[in-house]
Amino acid sequence: MSSIFEGFLSTPEALDLFSERKIVEAMLRFEASLARAQASVGLIPDSAAQSIIGTCKVDLFDVAKIVRESVRAGSIAIPLVKSLKETVALFNKEAAGFVHFGTTSQDVVDTALALITREALGMIAKDVHKAAAALLALAGRHAADPVLARTFMQPASVTSFGLKCAGWAAPLVRSLQRLQATAANALSVQLGGAVGTLAQMKKGNKRLGPQVTALMAADLKLKEAPFAWHTQRDEWVALACEMALLVGSLGKIARDIALMAQFEVGELAEPLEPGRGGASVMPHKRNPVSCMVALAAAQRVPQRVAALLATMPQEHERALGNWQAELAEWPGLLMSVHGSARAMAQALSGLQVDTQRMRANLDAVRAELPADVVYEWFNPALAQHAATLTRSQVALATNALAALELP
Amino acid sequence: MSSIFEGFLSTPEALDLFSERKIVEAMLRFEASLARAQASVGLIPDSAAQSIIGTCKVDLFDVAKIVRESVRAGSIAIPLVKSLKETVALFNKEAAGFVHFGTTSQDVVDTALALITREALGMIAKDVHKAAAALLALAGRHAADPVLARTFMQPASVTSFGLKCAGWAAPLVRSLQRLQATAANALSVQLGGAVGTLAQMKKGNKRLGPQVTALMAADLKLKEAPFAWHTQRDEWVALACEMALLVGSLGKIARDIALMAQFEVGELAEPLEPGRGGASVMPHKRNPVSCMVALAAAQRVPQRVAALLATMPQEHERALGNWQAELAEWPGLLMSVHGSARAMAQALSGLQVDTQRMRANLDAVRAELPADVVYEWFNPALAQHAATLTRSQVALATNALAALELP
Amino acid sequence: MSSIFEGFLSTPEALDLFSERKIVEAMLRFEASLARAQASVGLIPDSAAQSIIGTCKVDLFDVAKIVRESVRAGSIAIPLVKSLKETVALFNKEAAGFVHFGTTSQDVVDTALALITREALGMIAKDVHKAAAALLALAGRHAADPVLARTFMQPASVTSFGLKCAGWAAPLVRSLQRLQATAANALSVQLGGAVGTLAQMKKGNKRLGPQVTALMAADLKLKEAPFAWHTQRDEWVALACEMALLVGSLGKIARDIALMAQFEVGELAEPLEPGRGGASVMPHKRNPVSCMVALAAAQRVPQRVAALLATMPQEHERALGNWQAELAEWPGLLMSVHGSARAMAQALSGLQVDTQRMRANLDAVRAELPADVVYEWFNPALAQHAATLTRSQVALATNALAALELP
Amino acid sequence: MSSIFEGFLSTPEALDLFSERKIVEAMLRFEASLARAQASVGLIPDSAAQSIIGTCKVDLFDVAKIVRESVRAGSIAIPLVKSLKETVALFNKEAAGFVHFGTTSQDVVDTALALITREALGMIAKDVHKAAAALLALAGRHAADPVLARTFMQPASVTSFGLKCAGWAAPLVRSLQRLQATAANALSVQLGGAVGTLAQMKKGNKRLGPQVTALMAADLKLKEAPFAWHTQRDEWVALACEMALLVGSLGKIARDIALMAQFEVGELAEPLEPGRGGASVMPHKRNPVSCMVALAAAQRVPQRVAALLATMPQEHERALGNWQAELAEWPGLLMSVHGSARAMAQALSGLQVDTQRMRANLDAVRAELPADVVYEWFNPALAQHAATLTRSQVALATNALAALELP
Repeated sequence: MSSIFEGFLSTPEALDLFSERKIVEAMLRFEASLARAQASVGLIPDSAAQSIIGTCKVDLFDVAKIVRESVRAGSIAIPLVKSLKETVALFNKEAAGFVHFGTTSQDVVDTALALITREALGMIAKDVHKAAAALLALAGRHAADPVLARTFMQPASVTSFGLKCAGWAAPLVRSLQRLQATAANALSVQLGGAVGTLAQMKKGNKRLGPQVTALMAADLKLKEAPFAWHTQRDEWVALACEMALLVGSLGKIARDIALMAQFEVGELAEPLEPGRGGASVMPHKRNPVSCMVALAAAQRVPQRVAALLATMPQEHERALGNWQAELAEWPGLLMSVHGSARAMAQALSGLQVDTQRMRANLDAVRAELPADVVYEWFNPALAQHAATLTRSQVALATNALAALELP
Repeated sequence: MSSIFEGFLSTPEALDLFSERKIVEAMLRFEASLARAQASVGLIPDSAAQSIIGTCKVDLFDVAKIVRESVRAGSIAIPLVKSLKETVALFNKEAAGFVHFGTTSQDVVDTALALITREALGMIAKDVHKAAAALLALAGRHAADPVLARTFMQPASVTSFGLKCAGWAAPLVRSLQRLQATAANALSVQLGGAVGTLAQMKKGNKRLGPQVTALMAADLKLKEAPFAWHTQRDEWVALACEMALLVGSLGKIARDIALMAQFEVGELAEPLEPGRGGASVMPHKRNPVSCMVALAAAQRVPQRVAALLATMPQEHERALGNWQAELAEWPGLLMSVHGSARAMAQALSGLQVDTQRMRANLDAVRAELPADVVYEWFNPALAQHAATLTRSQVALATNALAALELP
Repeated sequence: MSSIFEGFLSTPEALDLFSERKIVEAMLRFEASLARAQASVGLIPDSAAQSIIGTCKVDLFDVAKIVRESVRAGSIAIPLVKSLKETVALFNKEAAGFVHFGTTSQDVVDTALALITREALGMIAKDVHKAAAALLALAGRHAADPVLARTFMQPASVTSFGLKCAGWAAPLVRSLQRLQATAANALSVQLGGAVGTLAQMKKGNKRLGPQVTALMAADLKLKEAPFAWHTQRDEWVALACEMALLVGSLGKIARDIALMAQFEVGELAEPLEPGRGGASVMPHKRNPVSCMVALAAAQRVPQRVAALLATMPQEHERALGNWQAELAEWPGLLMSVHGSARAMAQALSGLQVDTQRMRANLDAVRAELPADVVYEWFNPALAQHAATLTRSQVALATNALAALELP
Repeated sequence: MSSIFEGFLSTPEALDLFSERKIVEAMLRFEASLARAQASVGLIPDSAAQSIIGTCKVDLFDVAKIVRESVRAGSIAIPLVKSLKETVALFNKEAAGFVHFGTTSQDVVDTALALITREALGMIAKDVHKAAAALLALAGRHAADPVLARTFMQPASVTSFGLKCAGWAAPLVRSLQRLQATAANALSVQLGGAVGTLAQMKKGNKRLGPQVTALMAADLKLKEAPFAWHTQRDEWVALACEMALLVGSLGKIARDIALMAQFEVGELAEPLEPGRGGASVMPHKRNPVSCMVALAAAQRVPQRVAALLATMPQEHERALGNWQAELAEWPGLLMSVHGSARAMAQALSGLQVDTQRMRANLDAVRAELPADVVYEWFNPALAQHAATLTRSQVALATNALAALELP
């Protein structure tokens, strides 16, 4: 699949993170960690583990060929494991039989995605943090600057621009908070073997699967799930829901900025950046490209989450179609989310605020309405109510932001 | 809207909860609580509050007329407030001017929905709890009973029926846990006044809005949101996401039961209940109607959540269309969720389990495969691995279930 | 389910059309037509048919009770047929055995929905026609009136308001055209009997099912489908897709009007109508309520269509859950569509157009840009290009509209 | 974006068709065709056109660099046009000024996608045709072979396997028919210039835009749209709806095959193919991989269509976010559709049918029910009703299939 219409809606980092190479690399990381853990509990010989670990280097593999072969196999894990066995056998014939021992395609794929998703969340959280911090700074600066409050897309009364910023910031801070908890549950090692019981990982009567899982969790710094989540995907899909809530909150900011940046409103503008926001033919155009990215994400991500939620009724011990659909939806989801977070971090960091124009727009409304309505609803002094609220909100949110540990 | 195709996919309780009467009643509860709080901080006269509170009784109102008038007004709150003012004026002319003071349509509607949603969540949690408890009992009873493990809808190996039940139970328990946290944040008083600043609720220079909010939160037993969430809907939509995760997990159970209840598989059956699961013409039919309800919900709810997520970029201080779309999606969402939870609670409470047939199906596989494959993958003794896992999972989940406080 | 948040997003006519009473009435119409056809081919006695036909009157039935009983049965058809048999038996005991003969729940429900949907489409088409005609009149009137063309929500160049109107009209006309073809295929009698073969409708070796279908199709003025479409739903769901395309095109108009009706833009306004567009507290508000309705529909309908598309893989000869989910989504879909069509028909019929403000907004742009850019991109004379296009489009669309036969 | 989880759900041909290179190539085809048409009406010099046409060769461009630069520009067209101008200038400085004359980013991108989509539709139609033909052959062969008819996933009565096949085939044939009509409308040249008026394409007072459009339509074999469809996307999105209906019908076949291929049912099997359908660890597994592909598509495509429908309310003369979201959803949609069509064409071409097992499953039901029920509902002779229906359906569908012109 081409990134030609995804690239400018995401970021180079996210595109790279979900590249074929990076995913194969993460799958090899799983296989190496598995061999290490299995050797340490005595399930496979140390020498085999050493050979496997030494071979789990992405540069030794023809990634494009593995991807091509996945089409026939109906799975990316099958050609990867086959290729790994062949490569291990080149160096250590006997070790090849211990590759991928007692595990299954879904174990390696799910765990690899957890590893990559953790990195993606880190990138996303960093940009959301930046956006939230920029908003709290703007909120403080403009706490008492009057601006029209608009409902149903019509002037309703007066608020302050600071309160708008605090209102935009609050859900970003809450997203970061919820993300911590959700990610801690979702980013688990997947290790169930063929059908979730790890039946192959035993020595005599001793079940060694749980120990292997624990060692791998420690090694890969993922959660040790109490048992395989092959077809119980609630914690994983919960992460997707969190992403969608975040994209919705970022989209709300983008929607408001786009409205306030209309020529006829003129209260805000995205920062000027050379080569950004131009048109292919109109030299005068200055397009709010960052808002465009966040709004496109807000259009697309809800449907991806619906697709993921709809795949949850996965049959028996491994699904037919539902799991594969879930996998295929995942990378694009996170790429959109990072695109949106980055776009808003950039737009907010250099947001151009025209408080005079805000006042002029308010005055234009005042000029058209009866005096009593103007006094009750469009008095610039009404911004004082907003200012008080803003200051308390900024204090709360600043503390909350500082208390966060980023992934 | 008719409930004719919704009724059998929901429950009588949920249908009643979201009836026009109950919603108007909840809106009146908001208005009474507002008057009480405003009187106690001195914003409105005690006598006016008494009149308003005394009038906020649903039996005094023509609910059908209010609903009819909402079509023209484009809002249910406008005719309700108008009707309330008129009714108050019948008893106390002066008090009518203090009805709905300093607040807005969205305040009353959002708060009313929070009140009703709390009740819906209680009903849902109760049924989910029942379903989870039934599953844990089944898991204990069948911890070591071998059953085919199936992947890609084909026999893969052996697990135990107990482990299947424990696997079904785990996400229900997690849903109940997450629901507590999510509901605690989502079920907030909405009170922002016209544009979120509560500017009308002041006495001289003293801003009394926050005090009114606090009093109402205590009175209505809802959270005191730090400020209005008119267009910041993340916590509210997060609740919808939780509902969808739950419905997905219930749908997974229903999908598996429906597959195992096929005539040719015959391992499970829904409990027999007179008048349930028949066909209009075929006397021999015994349809798995509870699975049908849960599967229908699992088809519909993801899209409702997508609709809610897509409405999040709400414009400025009150949205044009997005808020109204969100409102309209909400009742049907919760009605589907309760339908699914109730259906699975019923099906699981009396689930008919045929362990002999499970064994016979396993033996049929054994009869068709080479001896080494049978030994490695279809040995009934493999169920022992599952049994160990089951027992530890049941212990964990039983404790977790006991520790929950239901809404 | 309550209509409390649906009412003002739909129309009283649509609400009534999908009321429980009307749906039961349509189901009875199916049963009467079936008896008539079966008697005329000799499958059931004439006297039985007379009794059945005479009893198929909605006033003879306790609709609320049938709906209540559907919850336990998991089907609305089962209690309806039971009640019909009992009522027929009161008058003619023997005839009761011929009620619903050789048919199935899905036959009566699907056919009833086809009958009601035909009426809904007629109502929708009428309002869309009205909206399109209003737009073509506006297009003619304002063919050469310059207005800012805006891309990425920023001024880009000059077009004419007439061309905007012609652009809004074109997809409405196309929707009406496609709707004719799609409805002609979708509005079919459903008659398959228990499993689609009409096996019960035979006399000796003679298969009479096809004749019964043909007679019913003629009687009910529905298409005679070549065979039962119990689980082949493409033509039915195609109708839903058409509805969604229409709602998307109406939503585009609403989005543009809402933007042009902003106070700061002021180029358009919805018609003033007493009691419409007010706020619960702000006397000065004039909310674009019709746009709100159309935008809410444009948010919700895509997800309903996704739900319907997702139900298409219906199992075997009748689905478990998917069919029921489809049924439950259908009424709300059409209610939203009619809400949107009516809202735009009303808004466009009295749309207030301020060409002076359009010119003033253009001049404001001209004042801020360099002369060469103004000459190239913001010359009011550029509207002439649009005028030529507008006139040819209006001619084409007017002819197309006149050529349509409305459902 | 990586194709790592998309590859095995699509086809190599579809992946290639939507590769960055092929899309850039199609964009260059637009630019060459534009220059040719503009020269022929005298808008640009012949020599300039020759230079531009000669330069529009994908091998002359650094596709990866263009894609990289699109991230900053927020558009793929801007760096492509820039690169084209620079490359033309190397050979003919003066000609560079005539590159992309009077047109806009959306013109080149939309037209390029129309060109590529036409090829995709051809590939899809070919596979659907193959699947339908295979089904009609199966229907003929098994017209009278009895098989259990199942409703609500339980045995209901008897039909024939031929009728099941005819029922699967019918919507595929209808999809091909509707596709012809829909594609004929959707595959249009996009040419509107900056804001849809082609204002720059004039000579003196003569508007040459329509002529240029007509010439390009003839050259590129696309429809000549009456005017630009920059923000009126109904015909384009209608194509996506058709795709989703097709995927739904293919998914229904896959769902049924997967159910009938269960070990315990054993009536059908996907054709054996070396290297396909294996598991990474279980040698005995034979996974229905083609069904998996079609079911995954049936899970994902409805949501993509919802995303496209939701983008329809595009603002003014070019949208902010909605158009870009639509673009980004498009390639994945068609890749899924081709994956599904190919998978079902393959599975159906070699489908393994076990009529003895069908009979045995029927007999097993017969053995468990009372004689009268068996006689009425489970008599193998009931398949004769289905046989008659099958033969007439096969004749109709075969004729319809023969009458189709494939894209």
